[in-house]
Amino acid sequence: MPQPNSRRNWLKNSAAVLAGIGIAPNLWAIDYPSKNSAGIILLNSNENAYGPSAATKRAMADALSNSNRYPDDQIPVLKKQLADFWDVGSEHILMGAGSSEILGLTFLMVSGTKGNIISAQPSYSVWNGQAESFGLKINRVPLTNKKTLDLGGMLSAVDEHTRLVYVCNPNNPTGTFVEDAPLRNFVEECSKKCMVLVDEAYTEFAELPSLKDLAIKNPNVVVAKTFSKIYGLAGARIGYAIAHPDTIKKLSNLQAWPNVSTSMVTAAAASAALKDQAFVKDCRNKTMQAKEMCYKTFSELQLESIPSVTSFVMFNIDKIGGDFSKQLLEKNIMVQYREHFAGKWCRVSMGTIEEMEVFCKALKSIG
Amino acid sequence: MPQPNSRRNWLKNSAAVLAGIGIAPNLWAIDYPSKNSAGIILLNSNENAYGPSAATKRAMADALSNSNRYPDDQIPVLKKQLADFWDVGSEHILMGAGSSEILGLTFLMVSGTKGNIISAQPSYSVWNGQAESFGLKINRVPLTNKKTLDLGGMLSAVDEHTRLVYVCNPNNPTGTFVEDAPLRNFVEECSKKCMVLVDEAYTEFAELPSLKDLAIKNPNVVVAKTFSKIYGLAGARIGYAIAHPDTIKKLSNLQAWPNVSTSMVTAAAASAALKDQAFVKDCRNKTMQAKEMCYKTFSELQLESIPSVTSFVMFNIDKIGGDFSKQLLEKNIMVQYREHFAGKWCRVSMGTIEEMEVFCKALKSIG
Repeated sequence: MPQPNSRRNWLKNSAAVLAGIGIAPNLWAIDYPSKNSAGIILLNSNENAYGPSAATKRAMADALSNSNRYPDDQIPVLKKQLADFWDVGSEHILMGAGSSEILGLTFLMVSGTKGNIISAQPSYSVWNGQAESFGLKINRVPLTNKKTLDLGGMLSAVDEHTRLVYVCNPNNPTGTFVEDAPLRNFVEECSKKCMVLVDEAYTEFAELPSLKDLAIKNPNVVVAKTFSKIYGLAGARIGYAIAHPDTIKKLSNLQAWPNVSTSMVTAAAASAALKDQAFVKDCRNKTMQAKEMCYKTFSELQLESIPSVTSFVMFNIDKIGGDFSKQLLEKNIMVQYREHFAGKWCRVSMGTIEEMEVFCKALKSIG
Repeated sequence: MPQPNSRRNWLKNSAAVLAGIGIAPNLWAIDYPSKNSAGIILLNSNENAYGPSAATKRAMADALSNSNRYPDDQIPVLKKQLADFWDVGSEHILMGAGSSEILGLTFLMVSGTKGNIISAQPSYSVWNGQAESFGLKINRVPLTNKKTLDLGGMLSAVDEHTRLVYVCNPNNPTGTFVEDAPLRNFVEECSKKCMVLVDEAYTEFAELPSLKDLAIKNPNVVVAKTFSKIYGLAGARIGYAIAHPDTIKKLSNLQAWPNVSTSMVTAAAASAALKDQAFVKDCRNKTMQAKEMCYKTFSELQLESIPSVTSFVMFNIDKIGGDFSKQLLEKNIMVQYREHFAGKWCRVSMGTIEEMEVFCKALKSIG
């Protein structure tokens, strides 16, 4: 199973091979390859293969020389830009080093009194260890038979010990979504009893509305946004919260230096990326094309897949023999493999159209 | 007093002026000026006017295009480089978005049981609000008559409710330092009773040894390091902890995604900066020259100043009439002004030699 360690080991081995054959390459290029520099196709982390956009890279390059200056004067300008984009006030925005930091602060905020967090199973879970280290127990509610969030089940699971409900819509790793109206109703009902954290990492792919209007009025709702996905800036580490000013204040009190974990270059990147909506649209369209290609291949190979509104697709690999991930890795393709729903499922992130052609061809050769 | 808000307002006004006279400049250049683009000399935040180095900027530029990839494979390489630099193991290193994040995690770690933190007065205090929001009371022990850390007084202040002792050596804002031997003894004694957080932000200017060798063996000691000062990367937001593996593990459990708040570009910057020790040496030398120039001016004007081993100097402005900060700001120079030791003191960060010539001339005109 390709975990971070194996990716890392692969990189080390690759560096050793290059050194062995007398090539003295740029060390950074060896250590951190993209498909272009080292030939591996990374379809395992829901990154955007097209990003950052050309305009964003120009803005980053322009900001490099200011990296000796603290970004505390720059951040309010970016917050204002984000606030205008969402038609909210700057007092509704809190910046973080990725939406990871926003999630972490929200768990920390509710952990003063020990209790539980309601989440879906499977759902995004990188934060689980941190929440548990804060003394919070995670109560995972299985998805429905259609592999969508079981809002009724999650609401029923809320008890007097529940401190927070975490809801990722569209959901990762399934790529499924629930409609806006029932989600709003669910969030409002839950928020009467505890905090609700709405992770909107993939809304732009689905063109789903944000729940920001609900969040800015309700102190018990936090919306987490990220530049890691459709904006192509996973490696820039920038996300933000949209919430009620009182909630923003509480969250920011938990940061050592509120709002200032974002670098100068990253702030410039986010500002430029937000303006470059043509890039966003283009990424959305290309992701759809890539998914269609994958669905067609899954269908030809009679592999069950889950219809996705996001930049990744889950498909069942029970009928494929051997070590699936290893077989793909031998063809220089990395995907995420996990056991779900009493079976074996692969989550494949959409790369470029060309990369997905390679993926589909590889899948056909082993499927 | 020039607080962040006034700096920000100045920037807005400057932008308005430029727009008014029909110049359509690069927006980023307006919003985030350095002395070069907008004429203001920033001597208020202990930034390094010379950084980042040319080699560091090249490395950052090379890494821009990888900003769509999560840095989780890149971070272990950087941690290894840092570990080798300090002759410790990677298991002794934890990355953060500036040493701010490291400080914050350490306060969070000790806040499970409410109690107090011992710090010096005055000392670096940006973290005070966060620590207080974690329920920790800050017990501030005045500096000695020589304006150095009162190690004896701080040790005596440790009681059964003390969770952590914070010690910044050399101390900010005074620029004074305590010798290595008494500091080690102090840290060891304190660590028998509580955690000790050693902030080494300015050690490179003073060429003081790190307490890393003590920290890696003692689970109650955390050393915080930063790239914000002599490495010229305040705006890249990168720092790290050096500590015992058990302590690193505890701290990393408190991060939403351990070690991954550092951007791709920032990780590349730190790696290159660490290799560029010629730049570090050059910054140290130029800072010394700048300080000598300032001392000479203070002496001529009969202004009391505190001998500093860092990149900033505190001097007394009781005898200067009027609003000192405002008078300097009118000459496009920004410094930090605070009341300390029952008097008025200005902390001036060393800019370039040329900037300090302007500062000294300005001071003479109002001193």
